[in-house]
Amino acid sequence: MRLGMIGLGRMGLNMARRLLRGGHEIVAFNRTSDKTELAVVEGAEGALSLDELVRKLDPPRTVWLMLPAGPVVDQHLEDLGRILSPGDLIIDGGNSNYRDSVRRSSAMAASGLDFLDAGVSGGVWGLEEGYCLMIGGPAESFHRLEPVFRTLAPPQGYLHCGPAGSGHFVKMIHNGIEYGLMQAYAEGFDLLQASTYGPGLNLADLARLWNHGSVIRSWLLELAGNAFSLDPGLESLKAYVDDSGEGRWAVNEALDLAVPAPVITLALMERFRSRRPDSFADRVLAALRREFGGHAVRETNNDPNESR
Amino acid sequence: MRLGMIGLGRMGLNMARRLLRGGHEIVAFNRTSDKTELAVVEGAEGALSLDELVRKLDPPRTVWLMLPAGPVVDQHLEDLGRILSPGDLIIDGGNSNYRDSVRRSSAMAASGLDFLDAGVSGGVWGLEEGYCLMIGGPAESFHRLEPVFRTLAPPQGYLHCGPAGSGHFVKMIHNGIEYGLMQAYAEGFDLLQASTYGPGLNLADLARLWNHGSVIRSWLLELAGNAFSLDPGLESLKAYVDDSGEGRWAVNEALDLAVPAPVITLALMERFRSRRPDSFADRVLAALRREFGGHAVRETNNDPNESR
Repeated sequence: MRLGMIGLGRMGLNMARRLLRGGHEIVAFNRTSDKTELAVVEGAEGALSLDELVRKLDPPRTVWLMLPAGPVVDQHLEDLGRILSPGDLIIDGGNSNYRDSVRRSSAMAASGLDFLDAGVSGGVWGLEEGYCLMIGGPAESFHRLEPVFRTLAPPQGYLHCGPAGSGHFVKMIHNGIEYGLMQAYAEGFDLLQASTYGPGLNLADLARLWNHGSVIRSWLLELAGNAFSLDPGLESLKAYVDDSGEGRWAVNEALDLAVPAPVITLALMERFRSRRPDSFADRVLAALRREFGGHAVRETNNDPNESR
Repeated sequence: MRLGMIGLGRMGLNMARRLLRGGHEIVAFNRTSDKTELAVVEGAEGALSLDELVRKLDPPRTVWLMLPAGPVVDQHLEDLGRILSPGDLIIDGGNSNYRDSVRRSSAMAASGLDFLDAGVSGGVWGLEEGYCLMIGGPAESFHRLEPVFRTLAPPQGYLHCGPAGSGHFVKMIHNGIEYGLMQAYAEGFDLLQASTYGPGLNLADLARLWNHGSVIRSWLLELAGNAFSLDPGLESLKAYVDDSGEGRWAVNEALDLAVPAPVITLALMERFRSRRPDSFADRVLAALRREFGGHAVRETNNDPNESR
C-alpha cells in the first residue's frame, strides 16, 4: 500500500523502514526535516509539510501518526481534518489515552474521516522482530489496512480488539501488566544479589537458565539477561525509573472501575519511589520514631545539633 | 547413568520417564508400590524398599529424591544415611527450603555422603519440554551428575548456582517472581474483563496476540491463552488460590535481608486474600464506616435488626 507516515521518532522511523522493506510506499513527514531525510535515505518519499504529504497521496488516503501522546496529536488531526477528504483514513499508532481516541474518532467521523487507534508494542526490537498491534475502530477500516498490519507485525501479531479506543485501551492494560512483571523480576534479582549466594551468582547466566524450561521464561527476562551480560552490577545506571504515562492511566482505570489492581498500582508507586531517594515521607518516619521512642536516627549535615 | 529415583509423584514419575527415554537406567521406589509399578511399565526397575533400591545400585551410587518438602525428606535421608556408602551421592530435587538443604548437606557430609540440592521448574510440561534445573552443592558432584541434568533439562537448561543450598535458594526466588508475574497478568485481565470493552474482547485471542511481538510475551501468558481458550470466563474455577510454600519463604527472606520486595509480598497476600471472601478485616472496615459516618453497609441475614 501507499501511505503517509507522520512522526519519525524512534518508533515511527523504524516502522517506516519495516514498511518500506515490506514493499509499501511511504510518504514521510516530520516536523524537523532531518528525520524526514533519514526516511528518504531508506526509500521513502519526503514531504516538507502536511499539505505536501496529502498531495502526494491519492484518495482514499491513509495517514499513520506516530506522535507523542497529547496535544500534538490533536493539532495534527485538526490540520489534517482541513486538508484530507471524506473517506480518508487516519490511524494513530502513538501511546494516546484511549479516551482521547474515542473522542477523536467521533470528531473525525463528523468530517467523514475514518479513524483507527493502534496500540503498538515491541520497542526498538520491532524493526527486526515485528510490532505487536492492537487495533480499535471500525472493522472495515481495519480490513482495509490489513496489508500494512501484516507487514508491521510478526505472524499472528495484530488483532482487531473492538470499537474506537479499544486498541489504545488494550495497549494501556498491556503496559500496566508490563510494570508489574518488570517489578517482580527486579525484586527477585535484588533478593538474589543481596543474599549470601549473591557474590557467587552470575545473574546473566541465571536469566539465561530461567529462559530454558522454567515457568518464568519471557522476553523481558531475555532483556534482563542481555543487560546483566553487558554490566553485571548495572553500575552504569542510576536507580531512577521513569514512567511514560500508560501505567498511570491503567491505575486510573482501576480507580474508575473500582477493580483492584494492587500489584500494578504498587509497581507504578515503586517507580515514583525510585525518584525520591531522600523522600520527605522517610524523613517524617524518622522524625516520628525519634519523637515517640528516642530511636536512633541518621541526621544530615543540615542538622544544627549534630553532623553525620 | 544408573540412578535411583525415590518419590514417584507427578514430578518424580515424569522425570523418571524422561530419564528412561534418554537412555538412563532407573531403579524406582515409592512408598506406595502402585506408583513404582507405573515406573516399571515405563522401563524402570522397581524396588519395594530403600534397601532393595540401594542393593540394586553399584557404588558410587546416585539417588534422586523427589519428595514433598519437610520431614519426609529428613526421614528418607536418615534411612539412606544408614545404608549408603561413603562417596555415594544424594540429590534433593524437591521444593525444599534452602536452609534445610544447607543443614542436610552438612549432615550428609559428616557421613561421607555427597549432597546436591536441585530446584526444578517446568511443571507438568517438563516431561516434553525439559525441566529447568538450578543446582547447588560441590562442583565435583555437579559434574558427576551432568549426564543426568543434560537429559532432564532442555538445551542450556541447567546451571551450577553455587554452594549447598543455592539451587533451592534460586528456585525459591524464581517462585517469588512467578507469584508477582502471575498477579500482574491476573490484574490486567481483570481490568480488561471489567471494562466497557470487556464483553467484546476475546481474552484467548488477546493472550495469543500479546505473545507475538509484545513486550509482555511469556510462557505464563501462553498458559493463560490456553486457559481462556478452554473456558473464556474461567467459570469452571473457584476464585481461590493456594500457595505451595516457596512464595512465603521468599517473603521471609526479604524480611531477613531487609530487602524490599513489595510486589512479590503483595502477590502472596493476594493469594491469602482470595481465600477469605468473607474476611473479618472487611467486616471490621464496614463496622467502622457505619460507626463513624452512618454509611450504608450490607448486612447479613444474621443481623437481628435487618435482613438482606
